[in-house]
Amino acid sequence: MSFTAKNPLFAIQVRNSFERQTAMSSIGAELLIVEPGKVEIALPYRSELTQQHGYLHAGIITTIADTACGYAAYTLMPAGSEVLSVEFKVNLLRPAKGERFVAVANVLKPGRTLTVVRADVFGISESDERELIATMLATMICLQK
Amino acid sequence: MSFTAKNPLFAIQVRNSFERQTAMSSIGAELLIVEPGKVEIALPYRSELTQQHGYLHAGIITTIADTACGYAAYTLMPAGSEVLSVEFKVNLLRPAKGERFVAVANVLKPGRTLTVVRADVFGISESDERELIATMLATMICLQK
Amino acid sequence: MSFTAKNPLFAIQVRNSFERQTAMSSIGAELLIVEPGKVEIALPYRSELTQQHGYLHAGIITTIADTACGYAAYTLMPAGSEVLSVEFKVNLLRPAKGERFVAVANVLKPGRTLTVVRADVFGISESDERELIATMLATMICLQK
Amino acid sequence: MSFTAKNPLFAIQVRNSFERQTAMSSIGAELLIVEPGKVEIALPYRSELTQQHGYLHAGIITTIADTACGYAAYTLMPAGSEVLSVEFKVNLLRPAKGERFVAVANVLKPGRTLTVVRADVFGISESDERELIATMLATMICLQK
Repeated sequence: MSFTAKNPLFAIQVRNSFERQTAMSSIGAELLIVEPGKVEIALPYRSELTQQHGYLHAGIITTIADTACGYAAYTLMPAGSEVLSVEFKVNLLRPAKGERFVAVANVLKPGRTLTVVRADVFGISESDERELIATMLATMICLQK
Repeated sequence: MSFTAKNPLFAIQVRNSFERQTAMSSIGAELLIVEPGKVEIALPYRSELTQQHGYLHAGIITTIADTACGYAAYTLMPAGSEVLSVEFKVNLLRPAKGERFVAVANVLKPGRTLTVVRADVFGISESDERELIATMLATMICLQK
Repeated sequence: MSFTAKNPLFAIQVRNSFERQTAMSSIGAELLIVEPGKVEIALPYRSELTQQHGYLHAGIITTIADTACGYAAYTLMPAGSEVLSVEFKVNLLRPAKGERFVAVANVLKPGRTLTVVRADVFGISESDERELIATMLATMICLQK
Repeated sequence: MSFTAKNPLFAIQVRNSFERQTAMSSIGAELLIVEPGKVEIALPYRSELTQQHGYLHAGIITTIADTACGYAAYTLMPAGSEVLSVEFKVNLLRPAKGERFVAVANVLKPGRTLTVVRADVFGISESDERELIATMLATMICLQK
């Protein structure tokens, strides 16, 4: 699907908001792609953010997937609005192995109030192989100021 | 509901596993209660773990809720097994305001392979008022070694 | 939790809307309780509504749970509004055995736009024993006319 | 993604099991495509299966999506196994308008015990236009006899 942004400054708006998410810099996440209806966020593996077997914690995977979904929705919202997560569901498909991780979020259905977004999270090995490790289905809400 | 643990050392098993979750100490989470079918985890508010409005990031709330659900399930699993998250769904009910947060996980339905767990996450104010800010419904799997 | 209805005619409003859900009468569902923030719906077992092993189909269980959640939310909405399902998640906990089934929905968090509702579905045996067979966590939206 | 079936008789196995789902014939659902990792199910609109505004009930949409997901998973399971729904999450994207509906389920991640499946449900108009009305993310379990 291809979408058109209502707000010509959507990319700046997303990048400014991302900067205010202190959780992103604390875990080391980086905003890659910001396009109408699509956002990608990368996260290098960090041994301080694991579950009990040394894989990245499902909650940390969720953190980048949620931010990617929120901002994918935000790219399609009018200027001056705010985005909040209503709910999300995550399936953990494989152990979160990888040197780094990328969450790729795409809007499924934009709406004036609610926007539904899907994100896939990939683990990327040293040799640059991608494996799908988790998938999120999320609902985001637009708050008008 | 009241459950009986199969593994008399369930609490030690949970605490040892929790110690290996580096994500827990990195975000400042602490294991409170470990009972058969029930686990509570606390997290103080930290300004480095927020979303764009200064509230605790939904992914960080999910991180403690997921760990609480996983270990609530783990308390009922036989000795020598491992627990992994299959999937979870989170509804964000209110902005994650609070001085600290507590995730309270209770097993809904234990099983030999799959265990379903519910967690409520509360924000707790300075004056010790509790408000439900999020709820999780999760599926955990038992891996036998 | 105890809630107060804004619309004094909430129960009539729910019952009228339930009457218009042809799916309810087609599967044989009946509206039991309608209170502020709470709705119960019953469904007798029918051999025409099963999955491959003769148990009630998960989709039919979902049908009564969704309607119960929608109307539990609806009891707290202002007069003249409409309710629609945004999304729901269902965990199937046990085979849907029983002579009849009851979906019990309770509002977790009411809101002006979105309301979050939880439903438990019980299978009830001939000897009147209740067993939890499924649980739903749902988001409902209020549309103002 | 392309998958290979372990059971050469997977299509017959699925069709036989579908025949035993009395809910399918009762609502008028028909099995269209059965391929390794993919199943499609069609359902004509029926005015006896609606919610309060005359659209197909979300639970009925879920019924065909759940069956499609279950059998998509089943195509990849070994001979003699059984499939059951563990859980699913459904987002309702648009009112379920259409002359008929098609649920298209594709396996995301097959596994020995658990298989994760995604289904999209389309409403199809008289003039054969397709609109995505709902999406499901589901977990299925393989039971070995």
